[in-house]
Amino acid sequence: MSSTAPLNKQLFNDIRASILAGNVCPGTRLPPTRELARELGIARNTVLYAYDRLTDEGYTQTLGGSGTYVCDTAPDPALLDRMIDSSHAAGTTAARDDSRLSARASELLSNAGASDLQVGAFVPGIPDVSQFPRGVWQRLITKVWKTAGQGQLGYGSRHGHPPLKRALSEYLTLARGVNCSPEQIVVTQGTHQAIDLCARLLADPGDLVWLEDPCYWGARSVFRAAGLEMEGIPVDEQGIRLPLSPEVSPKLIFVTPSHQYPSGVVMSLPRRRLLTEVACAHKAWIIEDDYDSEFRYQGPPLPCLQGLDPHCNTIYIGSFSKVLYPGLRLAFLIVPLELVDAFAVAQSEVYRGGQLTVQAALAGFIADGHYTAHVRRMRKIYAARKAHLTQELQRQLGDQVDIIGTDTGLHLTVLLPHADDRSVSQAALANGIVARPLSSYFASASRSQNGLVLGYGGVADEEIAGAVRKLTCAIESVTRS
Amino acid sequence: MSSTAPLNKQLFNDIRASILAGNVCPGTRLPPTRELARELGIARNTVLYAYDRLTDEGYTQTLGGSGTYVCDTAPDPALLDRMIDSSHAAGTTAARDDSRLSARASELLSNAGASDLQVGAFVPGIPDVSQFPRGVWQRLITKVWKTAGQGQLGYGSRHGHPPLKRALSEYLTLARGVNCSPEQIVVTQGTHQAIDLCARLLADPGDLVWLEDPCYWGARSVFRAAGLEMEGIPVDEQGIRLPLSPEVSPKLIFVTPSHQYPSGVVMSLPRRRLLTEVACAHKAWIIEDDYDSEFRYQGPPLPCLQGLDPHCNTIYIGSFSKVLYPGLRLAFLIVPLELVDAFAVAQSEVYRGGQLTVQAALAGFIADGHYTAHVRRMRKIYAARKAHLTQELQRQLGDQVDIIGTDTGLHLTVLLPHADDRSVSQAALANGIVARPLSSYFASASRSQNGLVLGYGGVADEEIAGAVRKLTCAIESVTRS
Repeated sequence: MSSTAPLNKQLFNDIRASILAGNVCPGTRLPPTRELARELGIARNTVLYAYDRLTDEGYTQTLGGSGTYVCDTAPDPALLDRMIDSSHAAGTTAARDDSRLSARASELLSNAGASDLQVGAFVPGIPDVSQFPRGVWQRLITKVWKTAGQGQLGYGSRHGHPPLKRALSEYLTLARGVNCSPEQIVVTQGTHQAIDLCARLLADPGDLVWLEDPCYWGARSVFRAAGLEMEGIPVDEQGIRLPLSPEVSPKLIFVTPSHQYPSGVVMSLPRRRLLTEVACAHKAWIIEDDYDSEFRYQGPPLPCLQGLDPHCNTIYIGSFSKVLYPGLRLAFLIVPLELVDAFAVAQSEVYRGGQLTVQAALAGFIADGHYTAHVRRMRKIYAARKAHLTQELQRQLGDQVDIIGTDTGLHLTVLLPHADDRSVSQAALANGIVARPLSSYFASASRSQNGLVLGYGGVADEEIAGAVRKLTCAIESVTRS
Repeated sequence: MSSTAPLNKQLFNDIRASILAGNVCPGTRLPPTRELARELGIARNTVLYAYDRLTDEGYTQTLGGSGTYVCDTAPDPALLDRMIDSSHAAGTTAARDDSRLSARASELLSNAGASDLQVGAFVPGIPDVSQFPRGVWQRLITKVWKTAGQGQLGYGSRHGHPPLKRALSEYLTLARGVNCSPEQIVVTQGTHQAIDLCARLLADPGDLVWLEDPCYWGARSVFRAAGLEMEGIPVDEQGIRLPLSPEVSPKLIFVTPSHQYPSGVVMSLPRRRLLTEVACAHKAWIIEDDYDSEFRYQGPPLPCLQGLDPHCNTIYIGSFSKVLYPGLRLAFLIVPLELVDAFAVAQSEVYRGGQLTVQAALAGFIADGHYTAHVRRMRKIYAARKAHLTQELQRQLGDQVDIIGTDTGLHLTVLLPHADDRSVSQAALANGIVARPLSSYFASASRSQNGLVLGYGGVADEEIAGAVRKLTCAIESVTRS
C-alpha cells in the first residue's frame, strides 16, 4: 500500500507495517517527533500526523508527556492456542485443504453455462437494444425522479410497486391469457432470482426437479446452486414427454411451453393438459418460463400454461430482458394467492427489494402503450431478420440444412447431424462468431443432438451474410477434417 | 376471466371453458357460425373470431368444409394412471401435504426480520434520501444513456463495469485502508447478494458460520437460506469475543468491525489482530460488512479489517445503500485474487449481471468527487441529528438513560434494562413509531438485552421531538403496567 499512498501517509503505513510484523516490540518508545523528522529529512508535521493516526487507530499510546509507546495488540500465543487447538485436532477442515471453495461451488463452476461474450452474431437470448426507445425511457425515468417520494428511493415494502403490478396484470391477461390479479405478481431482479425463489421456497435440498432436456443452462445452474436433484425429461415435437411410472415424484417441473428453450418447440394443447394433471397428481408445482413469447411470427401467440391450469398449480415467470434490455434486471413471478406472502417476505429476507424508480418508469412504459408498440415494431424487425438469416443459411449451407424453432423468439437452431457441434462452435469462436452447440444444452448424452443455437436478436441485418460465411467456414473446417 | 375480457373474447373464453371442463365432448361439432350468431344475438364476425382462435389454439379443428369439431385434448385416464400411480404409492409427498412450502422456507419465514415499514422515525438503516443530489445523479444517468454502447444494455460480461471498479478501488484505498486492486472487486445487486455469494461459494449446507450476537437480521436470513449452521458469538465493548476451544471450526466468520450492528461497538485493534489469526488457523474466511462506516462522528474513521489481515483471508463487503439510496441495489465484494473468477462466474450463473448503465453513472459520481462531497455533507447533517436525538432522549427520558453506539452510523441504541423491549416496540408502532427491539437481534436468549434500536438517518429534524414524545409514552405505558 505504501507505494500508492500519498506522502503524508507513507510514514504511518511504514511504522504500522513494522508493528504488525512484530519488528517493533510492544512497549518500545517511538523516537521523539523532532528527532525522527530531522533524521528522515521530512517535515515534523508529517511525523505528528503519523503518530496521531497510530494512536487513533490503537497501535500506539501517549503516556503523559513522556512520549509515544507501541501498544501490545498482537494476539497472546497461549490464548490463540486455546482458541484453535481442539478444533484443529478435530481436523474438520482438513478434507478440502487445497481448494477453499465449497463442494457446491465446485459443482456450480464446473457446470457453468454463461458466456463471457454477450454481443454480436449469434449470441442467443439478446434482443436488439439499438432499437430500444431510449428517449421515451429517459423521459419516463426523469418524470419519476421529479415526483418520487422518499419511500420510492428505499428498499420498498414487501409487495413491490403497485402501479407496475396493475399495468402488468392488465397487459398479461389480454396478451398472454394469464389468469391473475395484480396482488399475485411479485417483481424480481431478473428471471434467475425468480427461479431461485421457487427453488428455495418450494423445494428442499435433495428434492427432485424435472427439467426439459434440452434446457436453458441458467435454470440448471440456479437449481444446482439450490441443492436440488435434476432429471432431464425428453422433448419431442409436441413438447415435454412426461415419463411413465416415475419412481420419485418431482417437487417442481420447469418448462418453457411457448417456445421450448433452445429447441423452439411449442407445447401442444394435449401435452399442456396432461402436464397440469400430472403435476397436480404429484403435488408438484409447474414453473412456466415465458421468456420470449412476445415474438411469435406465425399465427397468434399461444396463451400461456398458467391460464389453462385448472388446479392453479402453475407459477408463471416473465421477463423484461428480451423486450426492453437485459441489463434492466427486472422480471416477475405470478404465484397463486396463497403463496404471495411467502414469496414477498422471502424476497425481502434473501435479497431485499428496491429499484422502485425503475419499476415506476416501467409501469408508465406499459400503461402508456409503449410496451405494446415496441413489441409490435420489434416483431416485424425480428421476423425480417429471421427470414434473412434462414435464407443465408440455406444459400450458404445448402437447401437441405435442417433449421428448427423458427416460429417464435430470438433464436433458431441449425441441426448438424454429421458434425461435432462443440468443435464447430470452437472454430466459429476463433472467427469471432458465437454459435452455441446444441449438445451443450442436453443433460443426457444419449438424447443429445448436434446443432448450433443461433441468436439473431442482436445481429444487424448487414452483418448476417458475413457472419454466416464465417460460420459456414467453421462447419466445413470441422466436417472436412 | 370472462368478466374482464373484451366482448369479442368472451365467446371464445366460454367455449374454451366448456371444453376444458369436459362439458363438450371431443368430436362434438360446434353449431354453424351463422346459426350461433343468430341464436346469441351477436355479430357473425364475433363467432368467426372465436372459432378461429379455438382452432389456432388446438381446441377445435375444421374438417374440410364440414364444420368445426372439438378435438380430443384431455389426458387419457389410463395414461395418466401410469404416469402417477407408482410415485403416489411411494407417498413421497405425503409428509408435507398441508403446507406446500419447503422446510427451509418455513424456517426462513418464521425467522423473518425485514420490516414492511421503511420510512419515518425510527427505521434503522435508512439514509436521508431527501438530501440525495437527484439533479447530479440525473445528469450522470442521462450522460451515460447518450453514449452507452449496446454492450452496456446487456447482461454484461462476468467482471462488471471496469471504470466503477477503478474508481472504487482508488476511493477505498484512501478512505477505508482497503488493500485491493480493481480486479478484486465484484459488483453485486446489494449486500444480501454479496453475502449469499460468500455463503454458497465458501460453505456447504451444514457448515458453520460464526455471527456476532447481536447481529443484523438480514445476514442471518441469507445464511439460513443457504443452509448454514449459525453460532452467535458474544460481543463486548471491544467487539467479538472469540470462543476458547470451539468444538467445530467455522467456515465463515461474519463481522461488522467498524460499527457493530446493532450495538455500535467499534472492534479494538487487539481483537482485530486476534480475529485474523484465529480465522487463519481455522482456515475460515472472514466476511467484513462495512455497511455505514462513512459516517463516523468522533475521530477519523478506523481503517477496515481487510487491509489489516496479513493472511488475506478477509472478504470485504461495501454498499451504496447508506450513502446514495437503498433502492439503487448496488453493493460490492472485495475478494482475494484467487477467488475473483469463482465469484464472477457464480454471479453470472446464479443471478446474471446487468445494471451497467447505473454502474457507469456511479463510477462518474465517485470519480467526479460527488461521492466524497455527499458523504462529507451528510456526515455533518447526521451528526447534528444524532446530537438532537440524544438531547431529546435525555430531556424526555431523563439524564440517566443509557445510550450506546453513537460514534458512527445512522442509528443509536437506547438500553432499557427494566422494560420488555418487544412490548415497548409494539406500543410505539401503535403510535406510528418504528423502534426495533434490541432483543430481536440476539440469537441467544441468555445474552439478550432490552433496548431500542433507533435509526435517525431518515427522520427530519423537526419530527424528532414529537417522535421521541410518542416513544416516551410507549415506554411509560409498558413500564407502568
